[in-house]
Amino acid sequence: MVTDQKSLSLKEKLFVIIFKADTRAGRAFDIALLWLILISILSIFLESLPRLSKDYLEYLYRIEWVITVLFTIEYIARIWIVRNKLKYLKSFFGIIDLLAILPAYLSIFIAGSQFALILRIFRLLRVFRILNLGRYVGESYSLLNALKASRYKIIVFLEAVLVIVVIVGTLMYLIEGETSGFDSIPISVYWTIVTLTTVGFGDITPITPLGRVVASLLMLLGYGVIAVPTGIVSSELARTRSTKGNGRTCPSCSIIIEDEDANYCKNCGQELKH
Amino acid sequence: MVTDQKSLSLKEKLFVIIFKADTRAGRAFDIALLWLILISILSIFLESLPRLSKDYLEYLYRIEWVITVLFTIEYIARIWIVRNKLKYLKSFFGIIDLLAILPAYLSIFIAGSQFALILRIFRLLRVFRILNLGRYVGESYSLLNALKASRYKIIVFLEAVLVIVVIVGTLMYLIEGETSGFDSIPISVYWTIVTLTTVGFGDITPITPLGRVVASLLMLLGYGVIAVPTGIVSSELARTRSTKGNGRTCPSCSIIIEDEDANYCKNCGQELKH
Amino acid sequence: MVTDQKSLSLKEKLFVIIFKADTRAGRAFDIALLWLILISILSIFLESLPRLSKDYLEYLYRIEWVITVLFTIEYIARIWIVRNKLKYLKSFFGIIDLLAILPAYLSIFIAGSQFALILRIFRLLRVFRILNLGRYVGESYSLLNALKASRYKIIVFLEAVLVIVVIVGTLMYLIEGETSGFDSIPISVYWTIVTLTTVGFGDITPITPLGRVVASLLMLLGYGVIAVPTGIVSSELARTRSTKGNGRTCPSCSIIIEDEDANYCKNCGQELKH
Amino acid sequence: MVTDQKSLSLKEKLFVIIFKADTRAGRAFDIALLWLILISILSIFLESLPRLSKDYLEYLYRIEWVITVLFTIEYIARIWIVRNKLKYLKSFFGIIDLLAILPAYLSIFIAGSQFALILRIFRLLRVFRILNLGRYVGESYSLLNALKASRYKIIVFLEAVLVIVVIVGTLMYLIEGETSGFDSIPISVYWTIVTLTTVGFGDITPITPLGRVVASLLMLLGYGVIAVPTGIVSSELARTRSTKGNGRTCPSCSIIIEDEDANYCKNCGQELKH
Repeated sequence: MVTDQKSLSLKEKLFVIIFKADTRAGRAFDIALLWLILISILSIFLESLPRLSKDYLEYLYRIEWVITVLFTIEYIARIWIVRNKLKYLKSFFGIIDLLAILPAYLSIFIAGSQFALILRIFRLLRVFRILNLGRYVGESYSLLNALKASRYKIIVFLEAVLVIVVIVGTLMYLIEGETSGFDSIPISVYWTIVTLTTVGFGDITPITPLGRVVASLLMLLGYGVIAVPTGIVSSELARTRSTKGNGRTCPSCSIIIEDEDANYCKNCGQELKH
Repeated sequence: MVTDQKSLSLKEKLFVIIFKADTRAGRAFDIALLWLILISILSIFLESLPRLSKDYLEYLYRIEWVITVLFTIEYIARIWIVRNKLKYLKSFFGIIDLLAILPAYLSIFIAGSQFALILRIFRLLRVFRILNLGRYVGESYSLLNALKASRYKIIVFLEAVLVIVVIVGTLMYLIEGETSGFDSIPISVYWTIVTLTTVGFGDITPITPLGRVVASLLMLLGYGVIAVPTGIVSSELARTRSTKGNGRTCPSCSIIIEDEDANYCKNCGQELKH
Repeated sequence: MVTDQKSLSLKEKLFVIIFKADTRAGRAFDIALLWLILISILSIFLESLPRLSKDYLEYLYRIEWVITVLFTIEYIARIWIVRNKLKYLKSFFGIIDLLAILPAYLSIFIAGSQFALILRIFRLLRVFRILNLGRYVGESYSLLNALKASRYKIIVFLEAVLVIVVIVGTLMYLIEGETSGFDSIPISVYWTIVTLTTVGFGDITPITPLGRVVASLLMLLGYGVIAVPTGIVSSELARTRSTKGNGRTCPSCSIIIEDEDANYCKNCGQELKH
Repeated sequence: MVTDQKSLSLKEKLFVIIFKADTRAGRAFDIALLWLILISILSIFLESLPRLSKDYLEYLYRIEWVITVLFTIEYIARIWIVRNKLKYLKSFFGIIDLLAILPAYLSIFIAGSQFALILRIFRLLRVFRILNLGRYVGESYSLLNALKASRYKIIVFLEAVLVIVVIVGTLMYLIEGETSGFDSIPISVYWTIVTLTTVGFGDITPITPLGRVVASLLMLLGYGVIAVPTGIVSSELARTRSTKGNGRTCPSCSIIIEDEDANYCKNCGQELKH
């Protein structure tokens, strides 16, 4: 394998390292990338701490810049390697790779913009994708497909939630008023969302008896209504599963063979091809 | 298309614009309606803000009145156009259309009643229905059917919740008493609903050890019991799906054949083609 | 019907009125019972209000006693009517009927025991059962069966929750200590239940960074783990449904006929008997 | 049975008592163990109470030591009895048994380490396993299998949650800032987890309008996203159920035949009997 790589051009060698995860070098590259992303995220986290001494801050900035330079080199290498450069630049991961370095250079001109480096977390998706090629990708698609198939149902559900939230929010504003913290309709609608989703911060709570009755009904509604998105996704996932790998029909008795590993028809005993 | 519309009477032209979404004019009308509703809702939201200068308020009132006049014209046009006028006036959307303008006129006599204009949000349902004719309507019915089919189970569930909430509420009132904020049984029942539904505002919380033990059991119950409505809706949606859209109708007795692998009609024995 | 009832003995007439809901008198009796229960519950609710004038309280007491006397008469009538008196006295509803009157008499000797009258809410179950005979009973049994079938899974789940709650509770007590309100292990375990079940009162919250990390993991666990009871009940309800009414096999080709209303075998066209 | 046990060697007798639950002695031993564990846990709970008199504490320590000595004897007995001693020492329950006594001895040297005795709660798992051999073990495995089968989906889901939480957390830090308690990105991420999981402590809450809008979207997301793990586990449990316990094995190639209506083995074509 190693000798094979030596006979390749630099560009080909880089392609194997950067885009493939099944060689030792490619795997090492991915793991190094994973660590760089995590260190970078951690240093952004620490930078934001309020009581941090100047020295530590200086140290964190340096780490940030080293990682930014490494990511910039990688970004340029990726552009150099790929055949369809424009397609890469416009792709989801191409944009993520750019957003992972751009804010650092912007922060020279605009203070505070370095926090946008947090977008590097999206690069994790790339690394996860590479590291666990087969399984995770399949499962991700299966989840995405279930969500995609249920998108119309979910939009209908969200519309209903929107209408409920605006109506109940206005009602609570009229019932409770400013003394309980329901200062305006937008705040009241915010409270309604907090309550319907069963989050319940408790920063604003109803005080009047009528307000509490309406709140109780709202909570029971939210408690019951959570069943709807869950039911949608559950039934979609169940369906995906049951129709997965149907494809084959027995050539002799034409029943549908659901088992992917069946060698013989379960109905008539006809031998099956794979 | 445009020339076609010109040859139609005004009434027919208006019908196409207002009730249909598949012509350019009809679509534009629906989108304009959508924006008017959203602007109206937004201006009601802003009106309710406590620290708003007189000038802005005046400006918002004017927007409100312009929209009200436009909606009134539309309402009259709809009555004029539809054949069965009484049926429209009594229909769900007929009432919504009336409620979308009535509070504005009422607010001249009764201060504060303009907040009822928030009912305009219901008009969104009409617009959504028109804009995405096929799919959303089908999905809405599929959701409504699942909820309708599970209504007896949900009523039984709510009865059980009602009994639990009253018993546990009274128990907590006796255990905690007024020092912890459990001032009366109604307040205690309100707290029980807040806790069982896992909202947990935290405005009232148990302090005594026994009260906390009862609260813990209640929370675990609520956490487990949420499974019931979810399970009901999930299984109902799964069932709906599996019996839906297999497309075939018996050519002899016209019942819908749900089984994809049926060779004969289960009702009349007619042979079926695949 | 009325003439028929006249020819019956008093005992038989009472039986029809009290135990049956399909005659006019029986239905009226059930609805009267429903209202008496609701008025009684409401008056207990109102009695508990802290700032209630003496006059109102006196009035509520009188209502309570009138209802108690009516329920006592009904209880005696029921004992007189039923054949197997001991079986009734020992049955679930027999005990409920007794508990609905006993606390009132006890309150003469022991102050405060009248709050146990709240147990009258259980009588609602009887009324609901009578009023909607067919459907609700069936659905209740279907829900109870699903819960019963999944009891071992739910017990295993609760054991796991118990172990998690005790371990994490102790951990949080050691991490946070008394300054954050985690005064003792029992209180810490209480907080863990509040958090795991996603109730989140906010009366006790972690302050230390490590405590917040553990709390975050606990919340994500609770958020994911709620899937387990829901999944158990969902799959159980789905199974109940799918095995309901399987019973028939085609006498000609022996496939299982799942449709209860099929007249012909969907596979071979053989006529089916019901 | 008793005479049978007498003829056995001490080692064999102990084996029956300690490892089996189907004799009277074995059952009594398990129940005694159950109580010792519960008393031990309770005494650790009580020890942690802040206002406990010295006398009570002394009393609790003594209980703790008696139980520790009993558990130590049992531990030594177990090692003596089992054939493969190393395998037991390294097994899950072997380590639990050691961890149930070690902290007590460590507490002589290191103050406070006795709280690690809480790990005794894990011994409950052993007792439950023994007491309800058949059913609970089966159900535990069925739950564990469902969780195991859905682990890739759950990991993908947690990755997505991680990315959302970091991005939204940083956003909220930038929007709200220190005045609302969003002091740093880590705290902000902690708040995001509290909100996304619908726990909602309310110790930190957004104040700015934009912050509340983002919080509302986050809550609706969390409310909808809870559907995903639930859907995963539901569909997995439903699948496990449907492929379970159909009892037939192919007489020729001995694979398990899951389809109840299969006439031929799907693997080798062997004709099957019903």
